[in-house]
Amino acid sequence: MKYLFAIALGLVACTATGPRLDSWNDGAADDITAFVARVTDTSSSDYVPPAERIAVFDNDGTLWAEQPAYFQLLYAIDYVKSHAHEHPEWRTTQPFKAALEGDMEALGASGSEGLFKLVMTSHSGVSSDEFAEITKAWCATAQHPTKGRPFTEMIYQPMVEILEYLRANGFKTFIVSGGGVQFIRAFAEESYGIPPEQVIGSTIKTTLEASSSGTWIRRSNEIDFVNDKAGKVIAINRIIGRRPIAAFGNSDGDLQMLQWTAAGDGARLCVLVHHTDDGREWSYDRESHIGRLDKALDEAKRKGWSVIDMKRAWSQVFPTHEP
Amino acid sequence: MKYLFAIALGLVACTATGPRLDSWNDGAADDITAFVARVTDTSSSDYVPPAERIAVFDNDGTLWAEQPAYFQLLYAIDYVKSHAHEHPEWRTTQPFKAALEGDMEALGASGSEGLFKLVMTSHSGVSSDEFAEITKAWCATAQHPTKGRPFTEMIYQPMVEILEYLRANGFKTFIVSGGGVQFIRAFAEESYGIPPEQVIGSTIKTTLEASSSGTWIRRSNEIDFVNDKAGKVIAINRIIGRRPIAAFGNSDGDLQMLQWTAAGDGARLCVLVHHTDDGREWSYDRESHIGRLDKALDEAKRKGWSVIDMKRAWSQVFPTHEP
Repeated sequence: MKYLFAIALGLVACTATGPRLDSWNDGAADDITAFVARVTDTSSSDYVPPAERIAVFDNDGTLWAEQPAYFQLLYAIDYVKSHAHEHPEWRTTQPFKAALEGDMEALGASGSEGLFKLVMTSHSGVSSDEFAEITKAWCATAQHPTKGRPFTEMIYQPMVEILEYLRANGFKTFIVSGGGVQFIRAFAEESYGIPPEQVIGSTIKTTLEASSSGTWIRRSNEIDFVNDKAGKVIAINRIIGRRPIAAFGNSDGDLQMLQWTAAGDGARLCVLVHHTDDGREWSYDRESHIGRLDKALDEAKRKGWSVIDMKRAWSQVFPTHEP
Repeated sequence: MKYLFAIALGLVACTATGPRLDSWNDGAADDITAFVARVTDTSSSDYVPPAERIAVFDNDGTLWAEQPAYFQLLYAIDYVKSHAHEHPEWRTTQPFKAALEGDMEALGASGSEGLFKLVMTSHSGVSSDEFAEITKAWCATAQHPTKGRPFTEMIYQPMVEILEYLRANGFKTFIVSGGGVQFIRAFAEESYGIPPEQVIGSTIKTTLEASSSGTWIRRSNEIDFVNDKAGKVIAINRIIGRRPIAAFGNSDGDLQMLQWTAAGDGARLCVLVHHTDDGREWSYDRESHIGRLDKALDEAKRKGWSVIDMKRAWSQVFPTHEP
């Protein structure tokens, strides 16, 4: 009987496997590993077949950093700087003037309309293929203004481990981000192992255009879909077509996605990354303009969601620099 | 030397494997198997890594039949019939009157506006979850008006074999259809082995609504995106984010998707299913109102795309009835 027990326990213990979570301090990932053990254990009432193991991840602030500004905005500023010689009028008109002068305060004062104008200018007019090349080139060379690292080394190593761990346990991992879908695709496959078809983001309208050498996709300067807040749920339903069983976010923009995930039947995992690490990363939550975490933090406490205290939970934040 | 040759040939021959194409007559699938052998052969200059092996399939007329009307329209007519008692006004107003009387001529005369009204009536007002249940129930019970088979047995057995064959060779198979995405998801996983997140179709606008028991997704009666013609390319770029290397269609609505696929670098496979089988299925092409195949047939001849003559190519059209 003891022997049978040992076998049974052995089987259960074996169901959740995969890469080690080396960048997590002892116990810090227990909510996650316990959940994975339950849904992959065929003898558990919480068992979920692989096809239904959908996990969704916010990007900015959840999979990579987002301070002192969304990296996509920093890309837009760099774009404006490198194209300023073609647009002398930018030197005297906002929000371009602020971008060129690196005046983040004036940029902030231009409001969402100004930021929108800046991002649209840097994201449109080119073909979809050209945009992919431009953003890939930027990701390969640009550096974070204060940390001095390439942006692709501002991803969170512990979260990369979670992505790999979930996939090793039969999960399909999706990014569901407010950022532009094509921008994220420029690095998601290499940085996170997430292929383009598993990246959901905000989109601008595109059209199919004919030219003498064939057809190409033109990026307009008109918003198609804003993938934030309730939009994340709408997009998950439209594109994935299945309710996730696990969701990871870090801000109020992720609240609806987490609630939608939590409201399904059976075992559910909802995780918030809480930015508490002023030394290695940043510390911010309820009062922050970027990645504000207020209502979702209250909801997490009410509902018993897992809140990752970055400072305590992670032994390492960013990946080790490559030699 | 002979020995080494044999090993080398053996390796090449082994690269394209997978389920047998039992419903294809000898040689009829050679274009497809030759292409798969090339792109999966690591020693070939045409080798394509698995992550880039994206194959897209139209649905109506390519994976299942579409005569005497798109099955989704037949669903809409059934819906109107079963809800007529709640709407006495339908007995005297078009297009509902025509649908109730089974008057396909009057229905056709109501034009695309009338058909649109009918489909919207049968697809909106409910939650996304309810709609999934309703369409699943319909798929499980409704029968084709002339063939007397369940619609889910009006899928093409040879194409199911191609889907399985491609997946066995590392391809990811997507549906890219003008039909409604949620309607197709009701049967795609069971019938084709294609999960919901690999179904791309036309969409209606949805909103996230709050109720006392939580949130739910309401289907509006407003079109969001028509996934046809150029729309198929736009959606592939937006949702898959990678150019397919293989595309299968049967009508002019698939022309841009096939051209887009063909225009990429490296080996490409473009296939048209040509409806030539008046006995087992239907015979139609250039003059048909449903699934018109005219410009795409000319383009296929010009570009050397593979055209499947259904009558000659397929030894079996529909799956064998289950006992």
